[in-house]
Amino acid sequence: MARHTGAETVVFSSPVCITATASTVGTKEGEGPLGKLFDRVLKDNMAGEQTWEAAESVMVKDNFGILFEKSGVHPDFLIAGDLQNQCCGTNYGVRDLNIPTFGVFDACATFGEALALAAVMTDSGAAENVAAGVSSHFCSAERQFRFPLELGNQRPPTSTYTVTGAGAAMLSKNGTGPYITAFTAGKITDYGVNDANNMGAAMAPAAAECISMHLRDTGRNADYYDLIATGDLGCVGRELLLQLLKKDGTDIADNHMDCGIEIFDKAAQDTHAGGSGCACSAAVFAALLYKRLKRGELNRLLLVPTGALMSPTSIQEGESILGTAYAVAIENEVIKWNI
Amino acid sequence: MARHTGAETVVFSSPVCITATASTVGTKEGEGPLGKLFDRVLKDNMAGEQTWEAAESVMVKDNFGILFEKSGVHPDFLIAGDLQNQCCGTNYGVRDLNIPTFGVFDACATFGEALALAAVMTDSGAAENVAAGVSSHFCSAERQFRFPLELGNQRPPTSTYTVTGAGAAMLSKNGTGPYITAFTAGKITDYGVNDANNMGAAMAPAAAECISMHLRDTGRNADYYDLIATGDLGCVGRELLLQLLKKDGTDIADNHMDCGIEIFDKAAQDTHAGGSGCACSAAVFAALLYKRLKRGELNRLLLVPTGALMSPTSIQEGESILGTAYAVAIENEVIKWNI
Repeated sequence: MARHTGAETVVFSSPVCITATASTVGTKEGEGPLGKLFDRVLKDNMAGEQTWEAAESVMVKDNFGILFEKSGVHPDFLIAGDLQNQCCGTNYGVRDLNIPTFGVFDACATFGEALALAAVMTDSGAAENVAAGVSSHFCSAERQFRFPLELGNQRPPTSTYTVTGAGAAMLSKNGTGPYITAFTAGKITDYGVNDANNMGAAMAPAAAECISMHLRDTGRNADYYDLIATGDLGCVGRELLLQLLKKDGTDIADNHMDCGIEIFDKAAQDTHAGGSGCACSAAVFAALLYKRLKRGELNRLLLVPTGALMSPTSIQEGESILGTAYAVAIENEVIKWNI
Repeated sequence: MARHTGAETVVFSSPVCITATASTVGTKEGEGPLGKLFDRVLKDNMAGEQTWEAAESVMVKDNFGILFEKSGVHPDFLIAGDLQNQCCGTNYGVRDLNIPTFGVFDACATFGEALALAAVMTDSGAAENVAAGVSSHFCSAERQFRFPLELGNQRPPTSTYTVTGAGAAMLSKNGTGPYITAFTAGKITDYGVNDANNMGAAMAPAAAECISMHLRDTGRNADYYDLIATGDLGCVGRELLLQLLKKDGTDIADNHMDCGIEIFDKAAQDTHAGGSGCACSAAVFAALLYKRLKRGELNRLLLVPTGALMSPTSIQEGESILGTAYAVAIENEVIKWNI
């Protein structure tokens, strides 16, 4: 049964199992440090299609296919999203799957939102099995949010590199762990950042607030978690996050990692501040963190996908870039919450 | 407790109350047949802002404010969305509200999705009170999906007119009815329609399938409902819906209305096929249908927001326009489901 703590956090005292995960990435991600862990690496980033957008939809569809095969389950509902205008990567990706789909959007934090809603839906009895999945594509994102690739623009050192890929997880009432035991839905933060090439700075305050709220609501210390994994803050955002939390008296320097920093080799792959995009946290969770939980190398993970809310129109109109984050507690034991 | 029927429908046997609704619309909607029913009518569609996008965000914020005042409740979570790229109408609208927000997108069906997810969240115990809200703005939508307004393009007779407005509902575990008793989450349909000026044709098959699935899953006949209200099919889409359902042996000609047809006076207001946009079904529900339920003039309503999934990029790349729909059963009695 789900229970609202009276603040921003929801806790689950019954099992909400993650029974399987699936990951697909592009060529560059396949050549990175985690390359061998992904379920599928594209041979070329067009995926046999004529457009980048269609290539992203192929990844969405095929990655859900991998998930259904690995879990042995055809889910009741999908909760899914991506970065394309009007979430087209998802919509065209799932149209042949014949499964009702709830479209969600929280920029690069979408995987956190999808996991949270899927957990509530599974726990409530509204569904037996729900699949949460997201995608992003460097080429479709770059031309949409910044400049056409053909311009050959220089990317500043603070910029991140959108991950080409898809990540998904199957949530079920029945099965073995790991389990989603709680989530904290972050509030939107506005620190006045308006540089679309510095997403880390826009998102770090949201991540810091969300982690702080989560620890406060659950009565846990940061070192309760074996690992706190943010989504795509990159090198710039990670430093800001550590500083912001330290001001608050919380030190996570030793048990923090950022999926965006891990997915690329910064020196060798020319990716500047790190990876980003919806698929960044989702694919790294699916390929690396979920397996480490399964093997017992991690027992208590706080996954914190982070998002920068903006559009080219909002930037051109002088708006700042908003930050958001979801903190999802994923543990090898079901917790009997008493809050 | 929510219960999955094993198909596309979720039923609730405990009260999920809609304790209040709020509606805000633009000048043209205010001059229409329902003009006097809305909580607020803008004096001008810029709402005192410099851009259409910012005007939409002001409506979002103020309309949630009206909802909080009418319900006397500050909700735990918001579930909200709109038509702007990256859901910016919502994100900039809620940034000052200090409430965790789940961003959702299902084009003009977004209000149905938001109600469904808010119902599950309320019913599960994950929250005491959840507000579901959506918005759209004729000017921000027209330039984003079709042509800049300054071009002065002629609109064909099949085109619909995006409603400028916002609609929202407060869902609570405690309170009096009307109650959300069930919802059916539609599957994405693709009938190969690729005319962005004929959304009714793209959405009608999705509405027909969703209504059929709902009746099948709940074991109800169409005449169980006092009213089946679709979102924004318009005149063209309504005719197609009636034909498609008739082929299936279901006749809803006598108990169907379309919010898009009701919100404007077609002859006097030059709105062609009718109104559309996320706010169309939401504002008409909030201003008209909810009040009719409250007064007992309606006791059993099936609200079916409909959506056309596409973006200018997907249309330019030759993709068809996908359809989606959610059917939400809203009744004056709690139903003890036995399915």
